[in-house]
Amino acid sequence: MLSAFSRHLPDWLRHYRRDLFAGDLLAALMTVMLAVPQGLAYAALAGLPPHVGLYASLLPLVAYALLGSSPTLSVGPVALLGLMTASALAPLATPGTPEYLTAAALLALLCGLMLLLFGLLRLGALSQLLSHPVISGFVSGAAILIIIGQLQALLGIRSDAGAGALMLLDIAGHLHELAPLTASLGLGALLILILSRTLLPRLLHRLGLPATRAALLARLMPMLLVVASVLLVQTLGWQARLPVIGTLPGGLPPLGLPAADWPLVRALLLPALMIGLISFVESISIAQRLASYASSRVNPDAELRALGAANIASAVSSGMPVAGSFARSIVNAEGGARTPLSGLLGALGLACVLLWFTGLLRALPLAVLAAIIISAASALIDLRTLRHAWRYDRADAYALLGTLGGVLVFGIEAGIAIGISLSLATLIWHASRPHIAVVGRVPGTEHFRNVQRHDVKTHANVLCLRIDESLFFGNVRAVEARIMKELKRHPDARHLVLIMSSVSRIDSTALDMLHQLNNDLRQRDIQLHFAEVKGFVLDQLKQADLLEQLSGEVYLTAFEAEVNLGGK
Amino acid sequence: MLSAFSRHLPDWLRHYRRDLFAGDLLAALMTVMLAVPQGLAYAALAGLPPHVGLYASLLPLVAYALLGSSPTLSVGPVALLGLMTASALAPLATPGTPEYLTAAALLALLCGLMLLLFGLLRLGALSQLLSHPVISGFVSGAAILIIIGQLQALLGIRSDAGAGALMLLDIAGHLHELAPLTASLGLGALLILILSRTLLPRLLHRLGLPATRAALLARLMPMLLVVASVLLVQTLGWQARLPVIGTLPGGLPPLGLPAADWPLVRALLLPALMIGLISFVESISIAQRLASYASSRVNPDAELRALGAANIASAVSSGMPVAGSFARSIVNAEGGARTPLSGLLGALGLACVLLWFTGLLRALPLAVLAAIIISAASALIDLRTLRHAWRYDRADAYALLGTLGGVLVFGIEAGIAIGISLSLATLIWHASRPHIAVVGRVPGTEHFRNVQRHDVKTHANVLCLRIDESLFFGNVRAVEARIMKELKRHPDARHLVLIMSSVSRIDSTALDMLHQLNNDLRQRDIQLHFAEVKGFVLDQLKQADLLEQLSGEVYLTAFEAEVNLGGK
Repeated sequence: MLSAFSRHLPDWLRHYRRDLFAGDLLAALMTVMLAVPQGLAYAALAGLPPHVGLYASLLPLVAYALLGSSPTLSVGPVALLGLMTASALAPLATPGTPEYLTAAALLALLCGLMLLLFGLLRLGALSQLLSHPVISGFVSGAAILIIIGQLQALLGIRSDAGAGALMLLDIAGHLHELAPLTASLGLGALLILILSRTLLPRLLHRLGLPATRAALLARLMPMLLVVASVLLVQTLGWQARLPVIGTLPGGLPPLGLPAADWPLVRALLLPALMIGLISFVESISIAQRLASYASSRVNPDAELRALGAANIASAVSSGMPVAGSFARSIVNAEGGARTPLSGLLGALGLACVLLWFTGLLRALPLAVLAAIIISAASALIDLRTLRHAWRYDRADAYALLGTLGGVLVFGIEAGIAIGISLSLATLIWHASRPHIAVVGRVPGTEHFRNVQRHDVKTHANVLCLRIDESLFFGNVRAVEARIMKELKRHPDARHLVLIMSSVSRIDSTALDMLHQLNNDLRQRDIQLHFAEVKGFVLDQLKQADLLEQLSGEVYLTAFEAEVNLGGK
Repeated sequence: MLSAFSRHLPDWLRHYRRDLFAGDLLAALMTVMLAVPQGLAYAALAGLPPHVGLYASLLPLVAYALLGSSPTLSVGPVALLGLMTASALAPLATPGTPEYLTAAALLALLCGLMLLLFGLLRLGALSQLLSHPVISGFVSGAAILIIIGQLQALLGIRSDAGAGALMLLDIAGHLHELAPLTASLGLGALLILILSRTLLPRLLHRLGLPATRAALLARLMPMLLVVASVLLVQTLGWQARLPVIGTLPGGLPPLGLPAADWPLVRALLLPALMIGLISFVESISIAQRLASYASSRVNPDAELRALGAANIASAVSSGMPVAGSFARSIVNAEGGARTPLSGLLGALGLACVLLWFTGLLRALPLAVLAAIIISAASALIDLRTLRHAWRYDRADAYALLGTLGGVLVFGIEAGIAIGISLSLATLIWHASRPHIAVVGRVPGTEHFRNVQRHDVKTHANVLCLRIDESLFFGNVRAVEARIMKELKRHPDARHLVLIMSSVSRIDSTALDMLHQLNNDLRQRDIQLHFAEVKGFVLDQLKQADLLEQLSGEVYLTAFEAEVNLGGK
């Protein structure tokens, strides 16, 4: 009976080695210590009551532990999705109302269903839709928006001005209305968090702690800050003098599907798709960075399904959209987690917090939450990628800056569309300038090399072109134009040999071009030949009728083509 | 004085050979004979008064003749843009009102300014944004929408039901309300047009005409039909019994910039971008098909500027968006046009029509215009590309069907977005399954080949992988996963040699991956080497610090790598 049941358990659980338990438990405890302040903060960022962030941290951990392919990824509310949730729900409901809460859960549900569907369709390749620079630009832009959005809560200023730069200007104009107590607490907390990220690890290390252990301890500072500020506020009786999060409902999250009506679902479909995409792209990139520690690899299709399930789990427990959290995953991995059991234990820990400890959080100042959000967001701003891209590939740097600017000027959703377009644009840009070389034979060998870089032998009646890219709709025009240019430069050529050693694919647009080229050249009394066509490309070409209509031949090697054509 | 002026004339005009004049003139006359009925029809399709189509045929011909790079492309109103104009303006104004006319001219202006800007930015590569199958699916879908939309006018039925399938159902339900006279005339005209496309050329050919001449004459049938139906209606006094186009304003188009206010401009920006894109993609593909007759090549950047100027010319003469027309360009080319003078003469001919002959068109039945539109649209439905793609590359066929379905279900604008997304998706799809081969040396040679296809020599401590694609964000995950898989299969490998002979580009996402791979492998005590790196790729890699950190070496050839590593 038990063995029949155990057959349905994941591998890691059936073969669990007891010596891993201590590490998994310790990591789970530390993850919970980070998940509580972050959950509260990111729910607030999304315009939701803080306890929703705790709800959204519980069941998703369980779902991911059972289905995910990374043993250490920690799933739950993250800053980026908090911002995106707020942006998606703003036109649809008023923050704090029951409609808003329902819409947030519905958003998580739609997002989860889409990810699950993509996973079942094995669309893991979606993670490759965005280039690193574009993702970096998007995340940096979102982080800046997050920081600006939190300044009000941090300083105790009220602003009604839009978002981004507008809000920044408005806050600057209202700086004299700053609430001294709130601002001192907020700025103090922010200072501590920044120092704990920069100086504390070095200090602890100098005091004799190993470097990774020191960094790990410093990462738990948010929880320490929560405890300290609660004690401070309660001791000094400041509850009435600054905004605190107030009474949180105790107990486990209520379960149930969010109520849905069709107009709301339709309005949420596009935001859910974008949130799903970002959730997936971010989670898989974190999972892959973690994998290089553990040297196990991540399966994108399984990740899609696991993230889908995690979002659905969040939705049915009155939560919000979730994704893999970089900070909590690092704490989990470096805290000693080796299996997903750590995630299950973390969920247990969060359940305990919800059941017995929410009362303690009542006096937590909102300014401290804002400081936690700002500190987390400032870590997301990534100048390193920009610096590298600027040096290595200017087009990538422009794509990064374009996406960053797009997010700041047009907002987070238009920013993703701009990012995808820029990824595509760089592709098309590179594809439209394919590398093609006129080649000749290196004397005394059978090798063919670029005539511009090497001293090679050519024949006036044979033009040999090596095409260094696969042929597809994005570059056929450019390839065709280059071929025509070279034929004009070699007016005596009666044979055009295309050396296809780098061509791994010829799509149907390119096939049309080759057909037309063949016909054009036939009218000009020039024969078209192919050489060094890869086996699987030749197999595909045989399905079309190009080879039958070809005015010339298909040669195995460029050398064979030269032997047959050169003398004529 | 005259020579100073002539220096500013286009080359073809300065060096005009008198013997080309007869051909240019004849072609111009025939083009005008087709431009009049098509202009009227496509303006009606756009919801505009028919004479706007004539306005939009005049100055754009002049603008293109002076700036375009194709000697035979004929620019003016086309069916596809008629539909897109109607779709763009529907939510903004009521057809027939002065606001609607202004909005149409404004749309042409914005479209022209965008194309001009793209041309000045040398973004000719934009024409490569869409694959052939996606364009084919888009055009076929639009053609079906056009045909369904014209059934009302053809049969004399009024329908208020949305568009597409809904309208088709509604018309089917109202078939009993069909107006007998209108329907007979419409269906009769359609029958004649279809027969004149299919049977007439063959008949004329059998009567002794050369095949191309026969096809050319058959293409002038719309004008014959216009004349015949006008005579019929006037003779029988049917003007009151069926809808006719009525009095057209005589004289040349009034000149002036369309009035613009910011909200209208903003609402038209996206449609203008899409219309501009389609105008460009269609025009350049027609220009390129024509170029293979004349064996001259088309310059995409010059085309962008010329089309931009043509649209601006249309806008300032109270017109509508314009593009290259396939039917009129074919008539022009096969009618004997050899230089853009034919376009200038055509504009002159249209001016004469507007000045003196619009009165004759008053009695033209709208049902005949509908038949002309339907006949032209049915020629756009392209099953051949679907058949080819289905056989040759299934992914392309799905992209075609997806775009076609997208246009039919979601409309023309969403259709383009779906088409671009599907073009991108096929790219990412192919990129995510890059070809990578484990290779070994063919004994007795220095050649390295796929171990699965050839009997080659390998070493247990050296794993040689040939990467058959450029490395970029779209395939780095897949390449990395494959490398890891092969390393697992070859547990004794201490050296990984990546043979880069097919790699023409390494973008910064891929560079990150190689960095991480290098670090990972170092921890597992495996050295990473490169071989056969192309010169310009190596130049680029030297700008990054990967080569300095590389655990292994960069070898010129795979053979050199084997000689150095194989024995160790």
